[in-house]
Amino acid sequence: MSTTPAAASGTRRTPTERPDELDRTDPARHVAESAEAFRNWGRWGEDDRLGTLNFIGDAERARAATLVRRGASFSLSQPFDMNGPQQGWRRRTNPVHTMLDTGTDAAAGTQGFPHGIGGADDVVAMPLQCSTQWDGLGHIFDRGMAWNGRPAGSVVTSDGDLVTGIEHAASAIVGRGVLLDLGRFLRPEPTDDDADNGAVGELPDGYAITTAELEACISAQGATSAVGRGDLVLVRTGRYARALREGWNGYAGGPSAGLSFTTAGWLHRTEIAAIATDTWGFEVRPNEFDVPAFQPLHQVVIPNLGLTIGEMWDLDELGDVCAQTRRYHFFLSAPPLPITGAVGSPINPVAIL
Amino acid sequence: MSTTPAAASGTRRTPTERPDELDRTDPARHVAESAEAFRNWGRWGEDDRLGTLNFIGDAERARAATLVRRGASFSLSQPFDMNGPQQGWRRRTNPVHTMLDTGTDAAAGTQGFPHGIGGADDVVAMPLQCSTQWDGLGHIFDRGMAWNGRPAGSVVTSDGDLVTGIEHAASAIVGRGVLLDLGRFLRPEPTDDDADNGAVGELPDGYAITTAELEACISAQGATSAVGRGDLVLVRTGRYARALREGWNGYAGGPSAGLSFTTAGWLHRTEIAAIATDTWGFEVRPNEFDVPAFQPLHQVVIPNLGLTIGEMWDLDELGDVCAQTRRYHFFLSAPPLPITGAVGSPINPVAIL
Amino acid sequence: MSTTPAAASGTRRTPTERPDELDRTDPARHVAESAEAFRNWGRWGEDDRLGTLNFIGDAERARAATLVRRGASFSLSQPFDMNGPQQGWRRRTNPVHTMLDTGTDAAAGTQGFPHGIGGADDVVAMPLQCSTQWDGLGHIFDRGMAWNGRPAGSVVTSDGDLVTGIEHAASAIVGRGVLLDLGRFLRPEPTDDDADNGAVGELPDGYAITTAELEACISAQGATSAVGRGDLVLVRTGRYARALREGWNGYAGGPSAGLSFTTAGWLHRTEIAAIATDTWGFEVRPNEFDVPAFQPLHQVVIPNLGLTIGEMWDLDELGDVCAQTRRYHFFLSAPPLPITGAVGSPINPVAIL
Amino acid sequence: MSTTPAAASGTRRTPTERPDELDRTDPARHVAESAEAFRNWGRWGEDDRLGTLNFIGDAERARAATLVRRGASFSLSQPFDMNGPQQGWRRRTNPVHTMLDTGTDAAAGTQGFPHGIGGADDVVAMPLQCSTQWDGLGHIFDRGMAWNGRPAGSVVTSDGDLVTGIEHAASAIVGRGVLLDLGRFLRPEPTDDDADNGAVGELPDGYAITTAELEACISAQGATSAVGRGDLVLVRTGRYARALREGWNGYAGGPSAGLSFTTAGWLHRTEIAAIATDTWGFEVRPNEFDVPAFQPLHQVVIPNLGLTIGEMWDLDELGDVCAQTRRYHFFLSAPPLPITGAVGSPINPVAIL
Repeated sequence: MSTTPAAASGTRRTPTERPDELDRTDPARHVAESAEAFRNWGRWGEDDRLGTLNFIGDAERARAATLVRRGASFSLSQPFDMNGPQQGWRRRTNPVHTMLDTGTDAAAGTQGFPHGIGGADDVVAMPLQCSTQWDGLGHIFDRGMAWNGRPAGSVVTSDGDLVTGIEHAASAIVGRGVLLDLGRFLRPEPTDDDADNGAVGELPDGYAITTAELEACISAQGATSAVGRGDLVLVRTGRYARALREGWNGYAGGPSAGLSFTTAGWLHRTEIAAIATDTWGFEVRPNEFDVPAFQPLHQVVIPNLGLTIGEMWDLDELGDVCAQTRRYHFFLSAPPLPITGAVGSPINPVAIL
Repeated sequence: MSTTPAAASGTRRTPTERPDELDRTDPARHVAESAEAFRNWGRWGEDDRLGTLNFIGDAERARAATLVRRGASFSLSQPFDMNGPQQGWRRRTNPVHTMLDTGTDAAAGTQGFPHGIGGADDVVAMPLQCSTQWDGLGHIFDRGMAWNGRPAGSVVTSDGDLVTGIEHAASAIVGRGVLLDLGRFLRPEPTDDDADNGAVGELPDGYAITTAELEACISAQGATSAVGRGDLVLVRTGRYARALREGWNGYAGGPSAGLSFTTAGWLHRTEIAAIATDTWGFEVRPNEFDVPAFQPLHQVVIPNLGLTIGEMWDLDELGDVCAQTRRYHFFLSAPPLPITGAVGSPINPVAIL
Repeated sequence: MSTTPAAASGTRRTPTERPDELDRTDPARHVAESAEAFRNWGRWGEDDRLGTLNFIGDAERARAATLVRRGASFSLSQPFDMNGPQQGWRRRTNPVHTMLDTGTDAAAGTQGFPHGIGGADDVVAMPLQCSTQWDGLGHIFDRGMAWNGRPAGSVVTSDGDLVTGIEHAASAIVGRGVLLDLGRFLRPEPTDDDADNGAVGELPDGYAITTAELEACISAQGATSAVGRGDLVLVRTGRYARALREGWNGYAGGPSAGLSFTTAGWLHRTEIAAIATDTWGFEVRPNEFDVPAFQPLHQVVIPNLGLTIGEMWDLDELGDVCAQTRRYHFFLSAPPLPITGAVGSPINPVAIL
Repeated sequence: MSTTPAAASGTRRTPTERPDELDRTDPARHVAESAEAFRNWGRWGEDDRLGTLNFIGDAERARAATLVRRGASFSLSQPFDMNGPQQGWRRRTNPVHTMLDTGTDAAAGTQGFPHGIGGADDVVAMPLQCSTQWDGLGHIFDRGMAWNGRPAGSVVTSDGDLVTGIEHAASAIVGRGVLLDLGRFLRPEPTDDDADNGAVGELPDGYAITTAELEACISAQGATSAVGRGDLVLVRTGRYARALREGWNGYAGGPSAGLSFTTAGWLHRTEIAAIATDTWGFEVRPNEFDVPAFQPLHQVVIPNLGLTIGEMWDLDELGDVCAQTRRYHFFLSAPPLPITGAVGSPINPVAIL
């Protein structure tokens, strides 16, 4: 691994797993340390295209199916339409859905079909990150390197992700889902704290969820929340619930609760297959550094751990049901749309309880 | 039901369920008779938005989960890219996937991000019927009427499907899948017939699959193929296998094997929740009429039965596995992307065996 | 003309040409009266597709060419990019321009071309009304009728404008341009009025430009501003200058100066070929009615007069030059992009002085 | 100029201007020689963004305006619709024009507007090279270098052309147009040659137009065809006329008549501002080399001369009129749509005679 950037710099140190030990002026050092410590490059061979999704095997999937009791299914997707949160950052718009043929036309008799048949047809134009989605392994690079130690410039060109395109995960993302409802766990009662927005079940913007809190939440929720190898972990912060109540108000790209940079070790150690949140950016925003930094936890976990990240999921109804039944695990099917060479995918994940 | 067109015309007759009894000069009469006979309007209330998907209840879904044995998952989706079958008919293009940011740019240092993070982002523009998809209930109209007896012109306008948009089915399409491998059943051996293309497991273009053949296939495949209420039935014709071997050659909109018009009664009687094929158009093409006719079975089953139809699925690997294991049913998760007001959806269906 | 809606209602009255005579509670009556009075249906035959653009003949165009003195050309287009004014109203987004191939890729050697050639290629997705544009004759309807008395529903279907698509005007919109700089004329000095924004050359939001003011501006600007048959009239309000200074702040769809509803007679009587402004909506916003009303002047002039309207033009540099040279007319070339069946077109109008 | 690739290689030789002197096995050498000999880098300063468009000054434009006689205007654009020539090469599709609102909806009363106003609105998604267009200066690179000696990778990234985007030419491309009707000149009579398609006015595929032929055409057409500094030269081959007659049949990317590689010197020496043809690729196809080569004349003239190239123009009606009137020059207005950062632009060029 002598070719990795951090190794080359000779500054091998133990990455911190506690926010109070972060040097808030040095994101580059922390990124380098965590990347070096938690890197999975080569773990699944030189040709790997799946990263931690490899942790889901047939056995895990078969066990996950046994979690289905009632047979109720829940879509975990936000809507895909022009009322979405996008404001144009990096040319990300909301989905533009237009009709090629309509019922109005059919009724007006302008379609020219025989024996009274009429039709409607439609088109969508959308950024793959516009609404509920997976980040593919080609979505983020660390100092010029993509997942598994490949040079970013030869992996993702204008022709798309030539190596780790999301189509390779087409059948992979089905398994045991576990909901960690941090919003409900940390905000079970109304609060008077002005820094909070005060709502039950919703973490305030800028709240950095730590490893200790993840583990405390698991303990509190009980045995069905145990997190381990191959699991698809869903972290609910309450940010989407607030957006539904208050309007988007910066949901896409603004402040939000999210995972602390220091959870990288936990994400690595637990050997989870993927993680998703109800926020735009998965990690806490603003981040925990006092100098310009951008999505530093992404930089560690996508290209180094090979972790697939889900964002903008709707976990609210699922949170209610899990709280009522005190069961926090379920069968989860969240296959990406196999758009060849895509570095992400819009999805409609379904939890079956 | 006195408001329905066929009833109004006073020509109630028994629809034929045998191709040899079709009057090939009168598609309008046959459409009207079958629509009248098999119409499910009002069956699930005036406000229904799901049609036969209502046949899948929690109990059906829970039972379906018990079908998972090995835990292997199979994507049933064709790729989404510019190499697809679309030729521009009705402005249907193949998906255009473009990059907003690339690894090449990240490597060249032109992205302006701090501490060595780089990113790639992308966009897709695609007809919702471009590749593997569901037809929503607003996709086809019968003499000006949409599903459940609503006027087409007030259901699907330029703003999309205001009533039965595909988003309403976001959590519905998960249940027991059954593969009926008609290609394998009817073409188990090479054939010399010039009308055939001769390949094992592939039906020739224009082959109209009858009710008798569906039932014979079920018998031959055995008990795991029994089809009933709430099932998601997948019919493999071999058309996609041929396209992979020979090139598209009219796959989108050209001749193909498919269901006979006369199977409408079987589709109604079995109370299946949805049906999908490996062809562009689900029903046989050219159709069975000698005068101009266009997708007459669609006209009967979508707006009248309320049947959700899947097209352009990849059933080849699944067919191989089912044949090897002699088990033809499985857990199937095929949720649409909840594009608000869409009359169809690109999907990546996953079968878990 | 007994088939026209107003005529059918039997309420023929003289339309008002003075704002103080408007009954602000009755837009429907005023629309009907003005439509009836100023309607040009049939003036250029039953098959007409050009409306008032017919007023530009070869002779007008040849005379216009003689207006070129210095030979300087000025683009009157705003930029087409993601920084534009659109906020998503009616699914109108800003243009999304994406690359299919880049110089970064060419430099990285990933394009696979011989002898050192490299290339860049791109795509745009945009509403035709996203930036500087013409409204085509199929853009607005009056009580179900399109230009020349055709039923709207048979003119513009989901397949586009089947009769008056913008492609028919491909060679028509070239002629004499006249700038009426109302902003400069009415706001030559700074103002203390709080209702104004105070800037020189910029009319406040909601300012309704009247016929008397148009004529006074022509008088003040002098003989080169005379407006007559076949002219392409450009009215500068200063709204775009303010947007450049202050940010968009409602430029697309919000309040703005613009033409009074009562100018319909002047627009008809002068026999101009087309008119354009530097605002989003051409007419004053909010409009001059106290009950819900929407773009009532559009409703009169597009389907009834057959007037082509330009919006979101950049008239600022042109205004400066005209003021300096005291010449307000010029050769104007503003051909639409001939997108078949379009009801509008993005344009880059060029004035040659 | 020591930084240029050819100079660095030390192989300065005189480029050939005769096809019979081409070494058909060595495109790289010929590209390098011609690039070196005809390079205009630095000619208009380090910051130049316009290349040979600089040859059009106000004086040229004013003189061009005096060419208008009759005042007739001719659109030189092909249609923009789904019936265009694109087949998907490099993700180039035909334009997809879809409606956001229609007259059918307005007539059905589903739009929710007051006082009887109704509207239609639309969207287009299109490659900028899909139909009649200009190639911008960032469209082609020569051995990693863009126009004026800039590194391609820092000029055109995923964010578009950051330096020479087509918006910089928004007001530049207006001036004297000259039609060279090579089709008519070289094929004035029907021919029996099997290599030809035999039609009058149409050159056969693969026909390489030489400098001698360009000059002979000018002589034959007479004084109005003289080509010089600042002119916008239009070369008609008849390829589009054939496509209209026979179907596209490879129009986009297939064989065609076009300029010989050896015309680079003439394109440089004449100091023309821009050149356009009625073909997809401007230069002859297949090209004149026997080893793999791709658009070698593009590689010389765009990044080295700084020449703006137009393709897929409709020059047929213009050719007829010029032949009838024996006048081959006119006022030409062909401003690009100022899409920020674009490397090309769809256009509707208008000739005024």
